[in-house]
Amino acid sequence: MGLLICGGNVVTMSEKGVIRDGAVLIEGDRIIEVGKYDDVKRRNPRGYEKLNAKGKIVLPGLINTHHHLAMSLLRGYADDMPLKEWLEKKIWPIESIMTSEDVYIGAKLTAVESVLGGCTTVNTMYHYTPEFNEAKAIAEVGTRGVVGHVCFSWRKNEDLKLIKSLAEKWHGVENGRIRVSVDPHAPYTVDPNYMVELWNVTLDLNEKYREKAPIIFHIHLAETMDEVDKIRRIFGVNLNGGVVEYLDSLGVLGRLTLAAHCVHLLEKEIAILASRGVKVAHSPVSNLKLGSGVSPVPRLLEAGVNVGLGTDSVCSNNSSDMFETMKFAALIHKGIHMNPSIMSAWKVLQMATIDGAKALNWDYELGSIEPGKKADIILVDAQKPHAIPMYSEISHLVYAVKNSDVETVIVDGRIIVENREIKTVKTEELVEEFLKSRNKLMERAGLTSHIACG
Amino acid sequence: MGLLICGGNVVTMSEKGVIRDGAVLIEGDRIIEVGKYDDVKRRNPRGYEKLNAKGKIVLPGLINTHHHLAMSLLRGYADDMPLKEWLEKKIWPIESIMTSEDVYIGAKLTAVESVLGGCTTVNTMYHYTPEFNEAKAIAEVGTRGVVGHVCFSWRKNEDLKLIKSLAEKWHGVENGRIRVSVDPHAPYTVDPNYMVELWNVTLDLNEKYREKAPIIFHIHLAETMDEVDKIRRIFGVNLNGGVVEYLDSLGVLGRLTLAAHCVHLLEKEIAILASRGVKVAHSPVSNLKLGSGVSPVPRLLEAGVNVGLGTDSVCSNNSSDMFETMKFAALIHKGIHMNPSIMSAWKVLQMATIDGAKALNWDYELGSIEPGKKADIILVDAQKPHAIPMYSEISHLVYAVKNSDVETVIVDGRIIVENREIKTVKTEELVEEFLKSRNKLMERAGLTSHIACG
Repeated sequence: MGLLICGGNVVTMSEKGVIRDGAVLIEGDRIIEVGKYDDVKRRNPRGYEKLNAKGKIVLPGLINTHHHLAMSLLRGYADDMPLKEWLEKKIWPIESIMTSEDVYIGAKLTAVESVLGGCTTVNTMYHYTPEFNEAKAIAEVGTRGVVGHVCFSWRKNEDLKLIKSLAEKWHGVENGRIRVSVDPHAPYTVDPNYMVELWNVTLDLNEKYREKAPIIFHIHLAETMDEVDKIRRIFGVNLNGGVVEYLDSLGVLGRLTLAAHCVHLLEKEIAILASRGVKVAHSPVSNLKLGSGVSPVPRLLEAGVNVGLGTDSVCSNNSSDMFETMKFAALIHKGIHMNPSIMSAWKVLQMATIDGAKALNWDYELGSIEPGKKADIILVDAQKPHAIPMYSEISHLVYAVKNSDVETVIVDGRIIVENREIKTVKTEELVEEFLKSRNKLMERAGLTSHIACG
Repeated sequence: MGLLICGGNVVTMSEKGVIRDGAVLIEGDRIIEVGKYDDVKRRNPRGYEKLNAKGKIVLPGLINTHHHLAMSLLRGYADDMPLKEWLEKKIWPIESIMTSEDVYIGAKLTAVESVLGGCTTVNTMYHYTPEFNEAKAIAEVGTRGVVGHVCFSWRKNEDLKLIKSLAEKWHGVENGRIRVSVDPHAPYTVDPNYMVELWNVTLDLNEKYREKAPIIFHIHLAETMDEVDKIRRIFGVNLNGGVVEYLDSLGVLGRLTLAAHCVHLLEKEIAILASRGVKVAHSPVSNLKLGSGVSPVPRLLEAGVNVGLGTDSVCSNNSSDMFETMKFAALIHKGIHMNPSIMSAWKVLQMATIDGAKALNWDYELGSIEPGKKADIILVDAQKPHAIPMYSEISHLVYAVKNSDVETVIVDGRIIVENREIKTVKTEELVEEFLKSRNKLMERAGLTSHIACG
């Protein structure tokens, strides 16, 4: 018994472009056929359930390539502050008293927020614990994710055990919906030896789990200007060039490397990223909000680097909204370069779908609506006053559509969101449990005044 | 019989700050009392209808200080193009065949879009005709607006008649909900003599309608870099300084002047704007999308210039979303200046409310929730997964809340939107009529291929 999405404007993100009055036939977790509704129907006269997409845009599920799901407990906890003060006085102290249950409940809320906004796959980096964790949260919500345990030099031994436990327990489970990654925090918090060790762990794990799926190496890179100085100061490394050159000298840049941010790059570093096949996760909202700057994305694209989009955590955003992120990504570079033709809607939509899938080394199964790929598909209602008329589905999705226009979400062939209601989670119970955890966290921190509202 | 909004977190935008478990008592079109719910109830034990705002944020209606309402027919009609080509090949040809009915229906759709997103007052500049126009559209939707007829040198005589007819027919009508303005298009399309004439018309009209309400002088200013060159070339003016200096030399800068954009300013021009009391309408999304650049808003604010926010038309946005505009306004300057502490959420929220009211010379009645002011109030649902937890209502409204979270909208004491449904317009009929007009417009333009979708 298959599922036939019929009558919508199918934005395939493949060479088939947009198919109006299109149809997508799904069997199990896979897309079987894509084409004009009439053709698909003629070839498949029966044997499926129908999902009416008349007047809707049908799009691959969006892919968020950089997030920290669990941090939703701290959404808006501290804003408009200088980065150092924000981290040292606000974020790190409160994170240090978060429990593994907090991580789980925070991640679950973000997974729900994400899928309600049309995002079917998230790549998340956070502290892993075997009992309660982000993978468990994503698995329960029914979406797809790459989950990494964030590594720091100061807890090396613990990290290495946790990475192995994470991989054993979660890599490739839930019909392949969950993958794991190896996540050194950043070049200035992971010493050179440990960085190389983590790269080798990545290669070993890829060897071990070769038949399951690739395991990527996810790292914050060149987010702020002071990283080179920090590496010199903290690790005593004699650095001449930039931080990309430094990582390249360690041999940790390759097709499995996903570098988040890449705001402060020398021109020659862009060439290195391109030649090594490193992927970039562009998080424009977070980079602006933290005052980090603006990543040279148009140059990265020219150089041939694959760039996906990320929201980053809701501490520095404060939303997991991929539609908003698309609009920021499309507009900010136009404004700064005073060129309205760069970062076209088409390129940005690729970044949120197929290029996001490439960033996660998952494009053989995700990122476009094509036969053989996983059935991760969203239906967008484009008939409300703010979204009419429609001339081009592509520019509409980037510039006019809101994440609240996502009506139906299918992940792995299963309808997770229908008519804007999530079917896998009792939202009211989740919200109640989440707010309880938040209140307890504030109590532990002696910040009861923060509990008053919401 | 009054209306009591009870139990919400009232963000007054006055010196009273945020009142939790607050209440707002409305009688007729005015706010009568604001305070803690218990206090207001004690002083007013009965005689009103109740509107439960428990768990909601109660905020003054947002004020959009720069728009062209009618252009919704062209939402997404042409994107990602160089400005000159966009205007000359796409926008102007199609606008030249728009009828006055098109203007009316386009404006009506945008008024609905706006109010559903929490915007209760819009300032709009477009072509006025006596029968069908933007004022009529706003009046019917039940919101509030400042409506101007856009003036060009080439149609001087016609313009002057239309300005007078607009003022006679619409200024101060609908219980004062509609105001008119005098709108020279820009310094490079209105010659110096005509500019001065329009300023004098503004002063005359203010004299004539002194007892009704102020009439502002709304102009595009310093949107692109080439304005000085254009003025030199087109009008043969011997210009040394910038375009602000030029307008100042004509004597048309004052407290009634609202300058949209102000992207390209010399430092001394910022001082002129401040000393003349000119107000600025900052439209960050449009400025980025058209590749115009980024307005030096932090400098304008430092200099003491009052800055409101605008979306600009949906041709260059492609949305009338004031929440999105707040987020862009808060973030873009942080990123460019690499300083997360500038453009605080509080300042940006002021820009969208009380400073917007000031920009329209309407702050004695709008922009904050205070006794005596007009009852333009919105209720925002901040309890959905993407909007919890809440630590600060202020940063929440700017960084996390979506315009689709606006649940109830009150304008002039009347509930216009309830539970996200507009009560003054039959949305389905409007959408149908709007799409018919769009299709006819495309047919007249010989662009039937543009009709296919939406």
